[in-house]
Amino acid sequence: MFLAKVIGNVVATQKNPKFQGMKLLLIQPYVNKERTLVQSGGSVVAVDSVGAGLGECVLFTQGSSARLTPTTRDAPVDAVIVGIVDAVEVEGVMVEKP
Amino acid sequence: MFLAKVIGNVVATQKNPKFQGMKLLLIQPYVNKERTLVQSGGSVVAVDSVGAGLGECVLFTQGSSARLTPTTRDAPVDAVIVGIVDAVEVEGVMVEKP
Amino acid sequence: MFLAKVIGNVVATQKNPKFQGMKLLLIQPYVNKERTLVQSGGSVVAVDSVGAGLGECVLFTQGSSARLTPTTRDAPVDAVIVGIVDAVEVEGVMVEKP
Amino acid sequence: MFLAKVIGNVVATQKNPKFQGMKLLLIQPYVNKERTLVQSGGSVVAVDSVGAGLGECVLFTQGSSARLTPTTRDAPVDAVIVGIVDAVEVEGVMVEKP
Amino acid sequence: MFLAKVIGNVVATQKNPKFQGMKLLLIQPYVNKERTLVQSGGSVVAVDSVGAGLGECVLFTQGSSARLTPTTRDAPVDAVIVGIVDAVEVEGVMVEKP
Repeated sequence: MFLAKVIGNVVATQKNPKFQGMKLLLIQPYVNKERTLVQSGGSVVAVDSVGAGLGECVLFTQGSSARLTPTTRDAPVDAVIVGIVDAVEVEGVMVEKP
Repeated sequence: MFLAKVIGNVVATQKNPKFQGMKLLLIQPYVNKERTLVQSGGSVVAVDSVGAGLGECVLFTQGSSARLTPTTRDAPVDAVIVGIVDAVEVEGVMVEKP
Repeated sequence: MFLAKVIGNVVATQKNPKFQGMKLLLIQPYVNKERTLVQSGGSVVAVDSVGAGLGECVLFTQGSSARLTPTTRDAPVDAVIVGIVDAVEVEGVMVEKP
Repeated sequence: MFLAKVIGNVVATQKNPKFQGMKLLLIQPYVNKERTLVQSGGSVVAVDSVGAGLGECVLFTQGSSARLTPTTRDAPVDAVIVGIVDAVEVEGVMVEKP
Repeated sequence: MFLAKVIGNVVATQKNPKFQGMKLLLIQPYVNKERTLVQSGGSVVAVDSVGAGLGECVLFTQGSSARLTPTTRDAPVDAVIVGIVDAVEVEGVMVEKP
């Protein structure tokens, strides 16, 4: 899994029927830079399965495992948010809410 | 999933029989750059399952999940377009039709 | 899927028995550069399932989907050529046989 | 699999129920640089299945295979620590505990 | 699949039981550079299923397909060596034993 920040959301009307009712969030993975987590330049669209909101730090899963939540089962989904991160500790030190 | 722009299409006569009748689109993923989505240098060939057209912003799925649409079931396909994007909002601001 | 050019071939005598009789081609993926497809620096070894030859532009599939051709079924294969590309059109213009 | 150093841990209260009781470690993959393993800039969150601790060098597995440990079975997990590394030998020379 | 050079080996005593008896090799993928294969800076740990040795050029498979050898079946393994490479031909010219 990777850590990411929720930076936005995506609206699509014309889509695969399995996506009906799914919340599509735009997230930006964090990369580690000298014991600090900084936002990378990438951006992933992940289905929300835990009630995440804008600005929150989340944990997301990719690949076939992304279909193993009640929200995403059997859907053509390859990224899902599986947790809202409360704290990250790097080398014994609490990282500022990344 | 990732966002991408449909930039072209691919024609292949000699191919795996499961590809018969599939529309193969050339798409270019978007990357995030200071709250703007810009086209990356990469290019992916994805099967269209939602009626996407040239210039449109789409959502695409990769890996084994790409086989979970009616169009791609059991085919040797690893990328499929699953939605046509109407709007992307980054940090509360609507992004120009990317 | 990605587009690639067939640049060579690989010979391996000592190998997993499922590879017996498979043609292993060395291919180089294309990346998009200002509406032109140029060869990237990477190189992948893919099983040929469509009769591709040296210098041809091909379409290849990766991951678990690479096992879904008659040639590769149940084999420990993660890349397979699924089509020979006749034409690629980018933004309405036919790309030189890439 | 890849080698990585355990550099921290992640706490998430609101999460997929399958994550209950799992230990989430922040790990940093190693890359090879002239026969020495050095920490890369990336960071992955992996489930611990072998009792790994801070500072240790570990072996981790990604993708669908990450669900094949007793700890992670059927969970939406895409990275798991499967071994604690005692020694790495590069070209016949023991690498300093990386 | 990718080509790689076997550059070392990894010892782990505390590990998932499915890894008992497996030989873990450290391999370095090759990348193509003007018709020559050169070692990349990456390093992967792959299970050996064909009797590969230090310095040899091998073919390895990643992802779920890595579990499809007798050695790795049902194990949490995501990379396996499936062949020992005898020869690589690039654009009609035999590449020096890479």
